[in-house]
Amino acid sequence: MPDALKMPEPELIDHAGLDSAVYLRIYLLGLKIFVPILVFTWAILVPVNWTNKWLERTGTTFSDIDKLSISNIPQGSNRFYAHVVMAYAVTFWTCFTLKKEYETVANMRLHFLQSEKRRPDQFTVLVKNVPPDADESVSEAVEHFFLVNHPDHYLTHQVVVNANKLSKLVEEKKSKQNWLVYYQNKFERNQSKRPLMKTGFLGLWGEKVDAIQHHISEIERLSNEIAEEKENVVNNPKAIMPAAFVSFKTRWAAAVCAQTQQVRNPTLWLTEWAPEPRDVFWQNLPIPYVSLTVRRLMVAVAFFFLTFFFIVPITFVQSLANIEGIEKAAPFLKPIIEVKTIKSFIQGFLPGIALKIFLILLPTILMMMSKFEGFLSISRLERRSASRYYLFNFVNVFLGSVIAGTVLEQLDTFLKQSVNKIPETIGVAIPMKATFFITYIMVDGWSGTAGEILRLKPLIIYHLKNFFLVKTEKDREEAMDPGSIGFNTGEPQIQFYFLIGLIYAVVTPLLTPFILVFFALAYVVYRHQIINVYNQEYESSAAFWPDVHGRIVAALIISQLLLLGLLSTKEAASSTPFLLALPILTIGFHTYCKGRFEPAFVRYPLQEAMMKDTLERAREPNLNLKAYLQNTYVPPIFKEADSSDSDDDDEDADDKKWEKDNVLVPTKRQSRKNTPAPSKMSVGSSPNQQDIQEKDKP
Amino acid sequence: MPDALKMPEPELIDHAGLDSAVYLRIYLLGLKIFVPILVFTWAILVPVNWTNKWLERTGTTFSDIDKLSISNIPQGSNRFYAHVVMAYAVTFWTCFTLKKEYETVANMRLHFLQSEKRRPDQFTVLVKNVPPDADESVSEAVEHFFLVNHPDHYLTHQVVVNANKLSKLVEEKKSKQNWLVYYQNKFERNQSKRPLMKTGFLGLWGEKVDAIQHHISEIERLSNEIAEEKENVVNNPKAIMPAAFVSFKTRWAAAVCAQTQQVRNPTLWLTEWAPEPRDVFWQNLPIPYVSLTVRRLMVAVAFFFLTFFFIVPITFVQSLANIEGIEKAAPFLKPIIEVKTIKSFIQGFLPGIALKIFLILLPTILMMMSKFEGFLSISRLERRSASRYYLFNFVNVFLGSVIAGTVLEQLDTFLKQSVNKIPETIGVAIPMKATFFITYIMVDGWSGTAGEILRLKPLIIYHLKNFFLVKTEKDREEAMDPGSIGFNTGEPQIQFYFLIGLIYAVVTPLLTPFILVFFALAYVVYRHQIINVYNQEYESSAAFWPDVHGRIVAALIISQLLLLGLLSTKEAASSTPFLLALPILTIGFHTYCKGRFEPAFVRYPLQEAMMKDTLERAREPNLNLKAYLQNTYVPPIFKEADSSDSDDDDEDADDKKWEKDNVLVPTKRQSRKNTPAPSKMSVGSSPNQQDIQEKDKP
Repeated sequence: MPDALKMPEPELIDHAGLDSAVYLRIYLLGLKIFVPILVFTWAILVPVNWTNKWLERTGTTFSDIDKLSISNIPQGSNRFYAHVVMAYAVTFWTCFTLKKEYETVANMRLHFLQSEKRRPDQFTVLVKNVPPDADESVSEAVEHFFLVNHPDHYLTHQVVVNANKLSKLVEEKKSKQNWLVYYQNKFERNQSKRPLMKTGFLGLWGEKVDAIQHHISEIERLSNEIAEEKENVVNNPKAIMPAAFVSFKTRWAAAVCAQTQQVRNPTLWLTEWAPEPRDVFWQNLPIPYVSLTVRRLMVAVAFFFLTFFFIVPITFVQSLANIEGIEKAAPFLKPIIEVKTIKSFIQGFLPGIALKIFLILLPTILMMMSKFEGFLSISRLERRSASRYYLFNFVNVFLGSVIAGTVLEQLDTFLKQSVNKIPETIGVAIPMKATFFITYIMVDGWSGTAGEILRLKPLIIYHLKNFFLVKTEKDREEAMDPGSIGFNTGEPQIQFYFLIGLIYAVVTPLLTPFILVFFALAYVVYRHQIINVYNQEYESSAAFWPDVHGRIVAALIISQLLLLGLLSTKEAASSTPFLLALPILTIGFHTYCKGRFEPAFVRYPLQEAMMKDTLERAREPNLNLKAYLQNTYVPPIFKEADSSDSDDDDEDADDKKWEKDNVLVPTKRQSRKNTPAPSKMSVGSSPNQQDIQEKDKP
Repeated sequence: MPDALKMPEPELIDHAGLDSAVYLRIYLLGLKIFVPILVFTWAILVPVNWTNKWLERTGTTFSDIDKLSISNIPQGSNRFYAHVVMAYAVTFWTCFTLKKEYETVANMRLHFLQSEKRRPDQFTVLVKNVPPDADESVSEAVEHFFLVNHPDHYLTHQVVVNANKLSKLVEEKKSKQNWLVYYQNKFERNQSKRPLMKTGFLGLWGEKVDAIQHHISEIERLSNEIAEEKENVVNNPKAIMPAAFVSFKTRWAAAVCAQTQQVRNPTLWLTEWAPEPRDVFWQNLPIPYVSLTVRRLMVAVAFFFLTFFFIVPITFVQSLANIEGIEKAAPFLKPIIEVKTIKSFIQGFLPGIALKIFLILLPTILMMMSKFEGFLSISRLERRSASRYYLFNFVNVFLGSVIAGTVLEQLDTFLKQSVNKIPETIGVAIPMKATFFITYIMVDGWSGTAGEILRLKPLIIYHLKNFFLVKTEKDREEAMDPGSIGFNTGEPQIQFYFLIGLIYAVVTPLLTPFILVFFALAYVVYRHQIINVYNQEYESSAAFWPDVHGRIVAALIISQLLLLGLLSTKEAASSTPFLLALPILTIGFHTYCKGRFEPAFVRYPLQEAMMKDTLERAREPNLNLKAYLQNTYVPPIFKEADSSDSDDDDEDADDKKWEKDNVLVPTKRQSRKNTPAPSKMSVGSSPNQQDIQEKDKP
């Protein structure tokens, strides 16, 4: 582990990618923000709070934590000025650190993009919503459109095919092959008995057949079906989606095409940067654009209900799974349940288990939502899931803990309440919950991180899988896959600690050290894990940083509003108004950062592109870019289908044919409806004219 | 006037520009929206409302208008379903019409842009925030940057100079020349007496001098100063602003440059479409970018106070200008004031006059705010003023009329009220104010429009000017200038009628005919005025339509919320919840329209640019574009300075020198800091290499 801490950042970027290196910076950012806050608040607020006797005088029960918190200041005291000043100090320091960090990460990203070696996505743009044309195929339409409208820059393209059915078949075949290996192993161990199986559902009923024989014939059948489907995907125009990966001769041209509008109708010929090939979420490419809006709306509604009403089905399940319910459903269990220890175990354990199972499943549910929404890259899927997870945590864990009663009940009261009473209601409850959140940080944050280094969860899951699912060596290998960082679950967790830390920074300074210990521990642990354990799934070049920044700023604003609400109940009329400027200043800061740094994460400046192009042209004047880009955006399922069929030579040839078909596009066309300018000239002026071969298509 | 109505739209566009033609479509849109609404609501809601005896039973005083309105429906009646259904019908119809209109206007705009003849702004991009460079001037930096980063497309550029001082001098000279003509005329009429004048402030005191002699010497002095200042602007690097108009060889390249980010730092080398030369607001070009944010913030704060607290100084002035105040300040007036008729006149008139003067000045104040904010084109200034004017009207005229008491008092109650009570409070007051708004429409809308055809206001202003200010023929000509449409005042007025019309469509159907008469009358009148009276100041190609659309949608949402609030007080628990979906659907509609049509008003699709380029290349292969673009973006003050100096040949030559200096840029430079790639190659490949002459600059 000390080695992991010593590795310098550039080496870390080389080793684990920029995403991981920047991910670690989030923990570091936590340290950078909270160490000075700890020093300040302990130096100033702890004495200011401690030297009061308000709680003793009011005669309420209180702990030592309360004595150190803002609760110990008498109503209307002038000491609240100290808290107001500290709130300014915390805001200023957080914003300063955030700005510096944003700047650093933006520079790291640009430097990384600039210095990294040639990558196909630098030259490629994903074009969606190619309009249907009666006279030409999608591939032809794309070719002609870009030859006309980017005449000096267009290089090649790759149409998107709907390979979802093919990928299902390949998956099925793989699974059958796995079973075959399992039965063969079984037969080898016990030669006396040929393994039998039932053909029905899950092998529970149906005709008894010889398992090995059955699987061999099944694989045979699937191989044929795969070959057929491949043929179909290649030749059937319906399997070709109105989208394509278009590659250009220079990075400059790709940057231009990705940032501009192509035609009058802004819903046609949509261009965006192509994700890195391994980042593409192939399954979603065939989703037609029209259905995307509907899907987005559906997911938004679903997420709203999930967040605010999730407690309803949980309560329902809980009400079913109580002792009376079990006794009713299964009266024969009554004597066992009535035993005292078992009864108390069930009473304590069952109501929680439904909730726990749901919370474990939540990231998967959110990921499924994002997938359904139709994002085209894994990185964007994870970013969207992360922001949903954060919102869910904020509403259900934070608000749910602070305010007693279900969120649903509270929502009703809130709507009937005045606008400026909401921060007050929540703000007042904040100091009382400090102990709870300290426990939460220790249980969830500290022990969770400690568990991560021991990889407890994966260990348990591995053993469960080993016991129930693993049949062959290949299965065991898959079960041992360490996985990647998991941005969609990890980042919202960190953000939650930023939120709690910022809220309690001024209210209960005693909480800050616990937050700091979490950040320090997590930094060390995750640095080790990233270097030694995790795999890198994709490289988005830290595209997630605007989200991280935005959520910390949101946490800051929430903390300011809650402090404002809290102080307004303390009769501190002279000091409270000074706090009003804070959220406005913070929003101004956010707007500034958005304008100043966000473009670095969204757009690709032409100057940078031109620099890299010129450099490359000077270094490798004879580079065959077309050969380099060929087949980079072929769906991996085609390659996989190949590898699993490596014995069949004829299918390999078939596959090659597919690739050829899609790269070499016929130039003869009957209609010139979409190319108003004399396309002959543009086509003639295109240098890749010689590459284009003629071929007839059905 | 009948001729004006017969003119077909294409001819109108030719005659008065697309802006005017589309402006007229706003009135037509009003007719299209409200005629079917009138038919529907009268056919269904009038009988539904009329056949109740609720108002008679409650025993309150009511008018016949109230009998026809929603007030006449008993509490909790099922008849409210009719209103809910009508609200859906109104929303559906309005959205349908809005969508069709947006589509039409977007197509008109694109068609206009496509078919209009070659215009310099099609090839030109305004580049702001050129970073300072120790080794080269702004002009050199621009030239090199674009030669490197747009090597095949860059044509020429024109730096922006700070000519504000020069323009002040030229204005002063013009005014003196005018006075000179005046005194010369006077002298001619009365040869016996040479006109004398005092040199002090406003000619009120100071030394008495011969007026003709004095002005001749003053003009002499100013001419010299102008020549000096011109020299200064040309040669002083401090007068050259870090901004430039950069022209490209093709529209495609200009479209690319305007839509992309140029360098890493998104606050440097900012590119945007250049406004049409006559649309440029030259005065604002020298404003440095850094101060823009501060200016925007200041204006936002100022506008907030203007909107919500404008009544405070008015009340103060009113309290001064009452009878007691006057009697106190000028006791000798007491006997006159105490006369009954005069007293009642003062009491009725004086309190209103401060408000009236303020409201007349308001558009000018808002325009000054927009100018201060630093927008670079007149069209954008007017659009921003229009949206501010609309907001002001909404808060002060609409809310101010509906809710009794000042807005300030109400604001306080609102903040303390629950969120969902606000539409209720306003909604309840709506039906009661129908009579007031009918009067408002007749007084402000009908008679205002009728006054416009007689041009009453300009007539009065003209006579006032003629009496007080006009000294020479030139002055009289200027005073007779009919002006342009005045988008910044006219559009918010129309929008206000849309707002009232939509709000009362379901609540008090009796109001709709008054709105319709306004739209019909205004359409006829303004069509006549646009064809026969107004001048076209600039052509923004209907760039204002997204604003118009957005404000009608906002009015629609406001009307839905108010109806929701109103019905929720009517105990119509079964029908009200159906209204909840309306605002959500309308917001969805707006998002759709924004995505579908707004890009046509912001971006310029590459396909269109390419088409026009190809067409032009085919038609005029030998076009000298550089000669065409030369001097189009020279500030008009230089041309004016020329024309007013047409007698001085040496200054003309001087002026030519200025133009030459700025068009022909030396290519020799000492540092290549900003051009990392071998700039020699890029420069070499540029075809306008031959045009560039070498020259040394200080």
